[in-house]
Amino acid sequence: MELYEGIITRRSIRRYADRKISQDIIEMLIKAGMYAPSASNQQPWHFIVITERNILDKIKDVHPYAKMLGNAQLAILVCGDEDLELSKGYWVVDCSAATQNMLLAAHSLGLGAVWLGVHPRAERKKEIRNIFDLPENIQPLSLISIGYPDEQRNTPERFKKDRIHYNTW
Amino acid sequence: MELYEGIITRRSIRRYADRKISQDIIEMLIKAGMYAPSASNQQPWHFIVITERNILDKIKDVHPYAKMLGNAQLAILVCGDEDLELSKGYWVVDCSAATQNMLLAAHSLGLGAVWLGVHPRAERKKEIRNIFDLPENIQPLSLISIGYPDEQRNTPERFKKDRIHYNTW
Repeated sequence: MELYEGIITRRSIRRYADRKISQDIIEMLIKAGMYAPSASNQQPWHFIVITERNILDKIKDVHPYAKMLGNAQLAILVCGDEDLELSKGYWVVDCSAATQNMLLAAHSLGLGAVWLGVHPRAERKKEIRNIFDLPENIQPLSLISIGYPDEQRNTPERFKKDRIHYNTW
Repeated sequence: MELYEGIITRRSIRRYADRKISQDIIEMLIKAGMYAPSASNQQPWHFIVITERNILDKIKDVHPYAKMLGNAQLAILVCGDEDLELSKGYWVVDCSAATQNMLLAAHSLGLGAVWLGVHPRAERKKEIRNIFDLPENIQPLSLISIGYPDEQRNTPERFKKDRIHYNTW
């Protein structure tokens, strides 16, 4: 798939086929996240690969928009590590760029994926932190639900000229 | 360029050739940003295209890592609009995903680009806010410096197996 076209045709996919995702593909997804840019190139991220059914179900119970995990093969929790930061607070931005790279990588590999927001919702962060027993310095940013797609979604029109300004507000 | 390969080979490019970027290409870059996912699909973003030399130079004077704007053809300021949000605070995450899409789009179009951090640095946000006279609800997230590349950068090894965890921290 061509890069620019892939950016435009990526959609949030919430229905998945009953087909396993190989370890090689899982590592390719995470590698894509690790090639995002980051503040001072500090790469302040960790990734928790979740394949156990009971953990996926636990997340479904505490996250209000995570129903699709019921038929996902896999979720990946993207976390920022505050101890790895030189510039305080950029982990949010860095881990968001990593998440977007992984969504695009999933699309390129024939997978479907959707971004579930965790940060900045304090209550969701607390529940996720409890499930994975995260250390203090580890901040959950997003969950990516992933599987081979069992739905096809068209590309909507999203270009809005009125959001573009030239040289001034 | 192939999507997965493009994700891996994108680098921060800070040296640019003296070659103009067409209006069509500028709109393609911003369109790529507009196809990022966003919380509740609210697309809470605005883009200020900066081509005037005196404004690029003003930014260079207030941002400590913006020297490359001296030879950039173009910068794009990515902003979040708090009034467009249903879920408060997600503009940071949404606009970061949009920024990453635009960096990848630049790569696919043969351009070079680099992400200059603005949010969450309060002092930089204030200076940028002043230059563009941004309304209260408009939050600057990032600046993207863009031009046709005048440097080539190899792909470093960034895959770190020790950042991957399975089913638990």
